[in-house]
Amino acid sequence: MTAGPLAIGIDIGGTKIAGALVDVEGEVLATDRVVSPATEPAAIESAVAGLVASLATGVEVQAVGVGAAGYVDAARANVLFAPNIAWRDEPLGADLTAMTGLPVVIENDANAAAWGEFRFGAGRDVDDQLMVTVGTGVGGGIISGGRLLRGAFGAAGEIGHLCVVPDGVLCGCGNRGCLEQYGSGSALVRDARSTAGGGSRLAAGLRERAGGDPMAITGPMVTTAAREGDRFAIGLFEQLGHWLGHGIASLVEVLDPAVVVIGGGVSDAGSLLLDPLRSSFEQRLVGRGYRSVAEIRTAELGNRAGVIGAADLART
Amino acid sequence: MTAGPLAIGIDIGGTKIAGALVDVEGEVLATDRVVSPATEPAAIESAVAGLVASLATGVEVQAVGVGAAGYVDAARANVLFAPNIAWRDEPLGADLTAMTGLPVVIENDANAAAWGEFRFGAGRDVDDQLMVTVGTGVGGGIISGGRLLRGAFGAAGEIGHLCVVPDGVLCGCGNRGCLEQYGSGSALVRDARSTAGGGSRLAAGLRERAGGDPMAITGPMVTTAAREGDRFAIGLFEQLGHWLGHGIASLVEVLDPAVVVIGGGVSDAGSLLLDPLRSSFEQRLVGRGYRSVAEIRTAELGNRAGVIGAADLART
Amino acid sequence: MTAGPLAIGIDIGGTKIAGALVDVEGEVLATDRVVSPATEPAAIESAVAGLVASLATGVEVQAVGVGAAGYVDAARANVLFAPNIAWRDEPLGADLTAMTGLPVVIENDANAAAWGEFRFGAGRDVDDQLMVTVGTGVGGGIISGGRLLRGAFGAAGEIGHLCVVPDGVLCGCGNRGCLEQYGSGSALVRDARSTAGGGSRLAAGLRERAGGDPMAITGPMVTTAAREGDRFAIGLFEQLGHWLGHGIASLVEVLDPAVVVIGGGVSDAGSLLLDPLRSSFEQRLVGRGYRSVAEIRTAELGNRAGVIGAADLART
Amino acid sequence: MTAGPLAIGIDIGGTKIAGALVDVEGEVLATDRVVSPATEPAAIESAVAGLVASLATGVEVQAVGVGAAGYVDAARANVLFAPNIAWRDEPLGADLTAMTGLPVVIENDANAAAWGEFRFGAGRDVDDQLMVTVGTGVGGGIISGGRLLRGAFGAAGEIGHLCVVPDGVLCGCGNRGCLEQYGSGSALVRDARSTAGGGSRLAAGLRERAGGDPMAITGPMVTTAAREGDRFAIGLFEQLGHWLGHGIASLVEVLDPAVVVIGGGVSDAGSLLLDPLRSSFEQRLVGRGYRSVAEIRTAELGNRAGVIGAADLART
Repeated sequence: MTAGPLAIGIDIGGTKIAGALVDVEGEVLATDRVVSPATEPAAIESAVAGLVASLATGVEVQAVGVGAAGYVDAARANVLFAPNIAWRDEPLGADLTAMTGLPVVIENDANAAAWGEFRFGAGRDVDDQLMVTVGTGVGGGIISGGRLLRGAFGAAGEIGHLCVVPDGVLCGCGNRGCLEQYGSGSALVRDARSTAGGGSRLAAGLRERAGGDPMAITGPMVTTAAREGDRFAIGLFEQLGHWLGHGIASLVEVLDPAVVVIGGGVSDAGSLLLDPLRSSFEQRLVGRGYRSVAEIRTAELGNRAGVIGAADLART
Repeated sequence: MTAGPLAIGIDIGGTKIAGALVDVEGEVLATDRVVSPATEPAAIESAVAGLVASLATGVEVQAVGVGAAGYVDAARANVLFAPNIAWRDEPLGADLTAMTGLPVVIENDANAAAWGEFRFGAGRDVDDQLMVTVGTGVGGGIISGGRLLRGAFGAAGEIGHLCVVPDGVLCGCGNRGCLEQYGSGSALVRDARSTAGGGSRLAAGLRERAGGDPMAITGPMVTTAAREGDRFAIGLFEQLGHWLGHGIASLVEVLDPAVVVIGGGVSDAGSLLLDPLRSSFEQRLVGRGYRSVAEIRTAELGNRAGVIGAADLART
Repeated sequence: MTAGPLAIGIDIGGTKIAGALVDVEGEVLATDRVVSPATEPAAIESAVAGLVASLATGVEVQAVGVGAAGYVDAARANVLFAPNIAWRDEPLGADLTAMTGLPVVIENDANAAAWGEFRFGAGRDVDDQLMVTVGTGVGGGIISGGRLLRGAFGAAGEIGHLCVVPDGVLCGCGNRGCLEQYGSGSALVRDARSTAGGGSRLAAGLRERAGGDPMAITGPMVTTAAREGDRFAIGLFEQLGHWLGHGIASLVEVLDPAVVVIGGGVSDAGSLLLDPLRSSFEQRLVGRGYRSVAEIRTAELGNRAGVIGAADLART
Repeated sequence: MTAGPLAIGIDIGGTKIAGALVDVEGEVLATDRVVSPATEPAAIESAVAGLVASLATGVEVQAVGVGAAGYVDAARANVLFAPNIAWRDEPLGADLTAMTGLPVVIENDANAAAWGEFRFGAGRDVDDQLMVTVGTGVGGGIISGGRLLRGAFGAAGEIGHLCVVPDGVLCGCGNRGCLEQYGSGSALVRDARSTAGGGSRLAAGLRERAGGDPMAITGPMVTTAAREGDRFAIGLFEQLGHWLGHGIASLVEVLDPAVVVIGGGVSDAGSLLLDPLRSSFEQRLVGRGYRSVAEIRTAELGNRAGVIGAADLART
């Protein structure tokens, strides 16, 4: 038996588009997915409409929420800019409404995932939550006083570009020292490859796992090696955790959340990442004995956070 | 002729307590102030009650808003912690209501000032504003989607403790490299005294203004010297502006405001501070040509922002 | 009329091998050069021997000095390691002596150039000189008390790997934040291309000079643009000079030279580089009014410093 | 039975003046010491002359070597500047020769200690040694190719002012981020007091040892606490070791010593300091598998290094 009216949540990712039928308590009743049809806007819209049609078959759907990487306007209808798809001021909401006959709201994908965790996951008992998504990049979503922060230009929560090292590593954004260059899965792999490629004995284990080719080292390889006790791989996670904890400590000063939820694919590494992250975070809180501070928790909804959050946001 | 129902705003500062009678359009109809009676909670409450009585004489007052340095609970009634006054879970709101017979709300003083600028000052045309107050310390207040961010423990907006230099200057908070140690009036004076005390010829002009005693150098002295062309004093403001612009750029990534309002006593230095601040901020935006970003503006309400904001918040 | 016995200096570079016949006063009597025959040790030795034979024709030559990128042993006879040529414990000195019938000494090329400037160039009036060579990389050579520092493993003077930014830009050497990543010609071009490639309007001028292709931007293009007033190009040199001055200030603390000589291809940019370099260096000396410090000078021998220095070292 | 002609070494410290009668093999035959008579140049000279007379009684002394904090001229006769004594271009050598009737040479005290370790201690088997003295400050002495580096103004080896953190902690020298502010005993105590003073629970153990007064925490207290397993005290040494290893790695790039000798009072902490120092140093050498690098050793002569080195330098 399902709770209340249903909504569909869609998560447009780089390699696939995922959809879910979700009830008002965040329960997923059905899911579906298609391979992401390149970066063609029209093809993506068709694929999304197809997923909606499939998921809506035989049930009554109230609304559709779509999460996509990009900046979304205040009306939650247009994508102002997307980094990986050729969307510029794209009327995605209107197009999809026309195609599906349902009310559609568009949200930034990291914000949708943060909302999912806030409503039904690790942050469901608080009003103020910062979510940090550690994947290829470092993303984030901020809930403050029970509301999702969208920002003036749909770009709030882009915590990956907090500068943690002045004059540090150059980022694709054009700046130096962004958190994303120190705390993401890409940073982990880049550093593993670079050290292995430099011929260091420290990285001998990783090089071997990659068949001798440093450029063949992957994130999962580093995780496996670390789990099996490879000191260098463990050290790479310690570095990652160090910088994430450092950046989160700054964000906690500014945002004062009750809970920081750590999600994203790299967080699957568990204590390998979270122990040094917590240690670094707490070290920054030295001397702050006088007041309450945020608790760090792991995400609970896994990669369903996005579709669950998008569906829920479609109803609000 | 005044607009609508009136409220009283109170700003409890370190050296004085200021009060104002404010209408719904943010106009100040009357002001009053008393010297701050040390750090005795009871004495401060009496002083505030006295100011309210004085300002309320002969007019009908709807509510009282009180801004104070410290963390305020979600009910806007209790001060959880104050850095300079012996308030720990102080029921300031209830006490003052009992003493004045009026509804009283308590707010963090930086948040009250940010709200004042947002409603009636430099940010009155936008929904998303970050205010940066550059005084003895560096404070802040965040308005997002038209709402003031308070945080889970009343501490949102403490931007002075964003870490800008890993392993940098030790801060009173126990951490290293906080923005406050690089972008505040105290940092300006500390560096001026330190260089002058070290015997540098660069600081000869400032040393002379201070009668030869480096420790007698004050902020206003540095400002005057800079205005009169003293290269070293100008350089100190450039440093300050550099770090403020740097920190603000990070905050803009996270919060995505439409406007950043720069206020506080040090901002009276005008272009001495704001030119390098803007330059540093814009340099961080290199390569971001594709999207709208926050505009940096100077505060408009001066030191009345706090009382105007507190009064307005009392009505909401 | 030539002064005293003659020596031949050879400079083995990445693209060409240069030779010169030099008298005891550092005057160059004849020069010759050949294209560098790839990275084949035997071919390089033949090419060097050919140059020596050519330059020695009709004159009496006392010795041959050879400068090469790499670490040279204490006997100045063997190349322990060379970054770009397949030399590992290469008996270059013995081989060349056998081929030329002349005494041969091998020196690190940056050390040879530093020695040339020290004996006959910008440092000829002092006993303690640091030379900083700003080219593709950042190299150096140290003369202290009139003697060239070689180090225990032939690697003294590798100032390009002084760490200037903890956790900074990754260097080919495996570390982060090396001076070479902030103060070399490669850093200049890398940053120019990166900003231009990111689409920044700031780099529009440079992009245009490169025919619209950011990766086609070259060092000379940046220099020309800066000379013609391009603000962004000027800023790139300011950054370079800033970090070089910063690093040199640290080195001056450790080495206490009388003179710092700035050479290398990038130093041809003149005041574009040297003004910010000096400014940054002097800023670090604030408060040091009490004692003498190193003077910063430009190199005088240009790209002949290497052959002149190598020839002179062959006689000592 | 003593070896060869004898020399006297004197070490002028802040609290005492130590003297020793030393043979050519570095053996100490007799020692004497007096309390340092404040900072009065004449009184210090008298005290030194008294020590020399006492140590020279009944034996034939060849020369006297005096180590003092300060910059010494190239003739090793005059103190150009001393940080703690009112010496400015002080003809200390001539004065002491007149008073003692013996040849006197003056050396910087850190250089004298480095020379002692080089000739008779931890570096006696190599030609290239960097000594790092970790005490109240961070000092150093460089031996390259068997010779002591003095520098153009007697200031070579001042490694404590290598910048390790751009924009870091302000140093007494007027700059920011000097190694001395991160790797000295003073830094250790400063950080311990500061954290304890901030009320952190982490520092509860140290606060207790100091009788509740954070400012009463001393270096030996931190060492004892660390030895007894206090996590916070151990962490303070880890920080110290981290930065020393970081700075030493940069110096090794520039100077290429065969051995780095770690001495000074703080190094008595042994593995508490040396383990993290070595770990940090070796981490910086990642990817450098192709060549020999310096070995890190502990000093062997303890606080006698200065007098032994001074005596030996007097004979050269």
